[in-house]
Amino acid sequence: MRRLFPLPGAEIAVEEVYSTLDWQAASGRPFVALNMVSSVDGRVTLGGSAKGIGSKVDRALMMALRANADAVMFGAGTLRAEGVGKGVPGAWVPHRVERGLAPQPLLVVFTTSGRLPLKRSFFADPARAIVFIAGSTPRDAIERLQAHATVRVAGDERPDPAEALRILSNEFGAQRVLCEGGPELSRSLLAANLLDELYLTVAPKLLGGVGPSLLAGQPFNPPITLVLRSLYEHDGELFLRYAIDRQSPEVDDAAA
Amino acid sequence: MRRLFPLPGAEIAVEEVYSTLDWQAASGRPFVALNMVSSVDGRVTLGGSAKGIGSKVDRALMMALRANADAVMFGAGTLRAEGVGKGVPGAWVPHRVERGLAPQPLLVVFTTSGRLPLKRSFFADPARAIVFIAGSTPRDAIERLQAHATVRVAGDERPDPAEALRILSNEFGAQRVLCEGGPELSRSLLAANLLDELYLTVAPKLLGGVGPSLLAGQPFNPPITLVLRSLYEHDGELFLRYAIDRQSPEVDDAAA
Repeated sequence: MRRLFPLPGAEIAVEEVYSTLDWQAASGRPFVALNMVSSVDGRVTLGGSAKGIGSKVDRALMMALRANADAVMFGAGTLRAEGVGKGVPGAWVPHRVERGLAPQPLLVVFTTSGRLPLKRSFFADPARAIVFIAGSTPRDAIERLQAHATVRVAGDERPDPAEALRILSNEFGAQRVLCEGGPELSRSLLAANLLDELYLTVAPKLLGGVGPSLLAGQPFNPPITLVLRSLYEHDGELFLRYAIDRQSPEVDDAAA
Repeated sequence: MRRLFPLPGAEIAVEEVYSTLDWQAASGRPFVALNMVSSVDGRVTLGGSAKGIGSKVDRALMMALRANADAVMFGAGTLRAEGVGKGVPGAWVPHRVERGLAPQPLLVVFTTSGRLPLKRSFFADPARAIVFIAGSTPRDAIERLQAHATVRVAGDERPDPAEALRILSNEFGAQRVLCEGGPELSRSLLAANLLDELYLTVAPKLLGGVGPSLLAGQPFNPPITLVLRSLYEHDGELFLRYAIDRQSPEVDDAAA
């Protein structure tokens, strides 16, 4: 693994990369980072899931990023498609505890329908599995969820990420949140100006097709400006870290 | 401008980058490179064109790439949307002549309808403006085109890039061809295994939306493997050079 930016391009062990990030909550809400993997042509799914796009190194860095987080969050579609697991591998637990984090991150999902695959390992520990629903979520779905997870209402028609982050911070003490997609949740975080950093793995592949890309929904007008913070490379796979430019004009989501 | 890969990450003048590439025709057809610019979320148009995505450095490298080419080719949609100009800036001409290239590259466009914006500077020199049409192209459109360009039939229903490359090589002596999109032409080159390299600028921006990405059409199955050849960086903008992996299984285009 080589760090190419900032210079110098030093060799570094995969386990060192992203292992102690400077994620700092600011402006009254948790710090929020987004981690995604895409092909060179910007595709984020292959046969319906992100599996098979990134390498083992991508997977290792995904876990290193999770190791920095108080909570890892997903859209319902991502939980259905990916089977996101139940947190970080055991090897990361002492590292987390040493740094004052809980042994495992909270796992967070957003759903309007309330229909989720309840047998997934995501729901292994109901106290650590947080499900954000909306006022519109059907009563019977909520009751099923409550047997497997900690359920909170955040918003009326659809779960509101800003309200969810307030609850995560105030009730659960989460100050560092990692989002792993999908494209709808990622876009809603950006549109509400709730995202601090983007970690993007670019796999040296062309997938083709017109399937999902990093962000769903309407274009941003104006585009959001990013600042490159670091860049690692391994076997042609690129690991980019960008800050969302706080100088960017507020995102106008009126068209969404 | 910094080259980050291969190491070392040396400072280099923009004019040096890509100025003398080792493009070599092989396997009985011209060498074909694709040059595109995308946002970090894989979008290749902003308000309908690629303008405004890349920086001045991206534009300079686009011209440096053109300076290596005997012919620069475009899909009709790209010609309509971008106004692709008439070749390389005058400063590149002595460099080209020194290397045994014509002062300006041929300009090539593919069209089935035959309807092209004939007042564009693309058509400034009819001998250097090559239009590939198909057997299905309407007769009256062909007649209009012939007053402004050198017109050749390549294929029946739609212009066939493989046949067009044969004509470019045999009749026009073009051995190094640069394609600048759009997504349909790029995909058809890849699907027919006619592409050798991909040059991609990744602008540090998020555009959002579900508009065109690098490639149109159906997914590749299996995905096409790329090999990272070099990576330059300037103000957070990344300039990637990939080889198309010749070890890749033949692209199965049956689903397209």
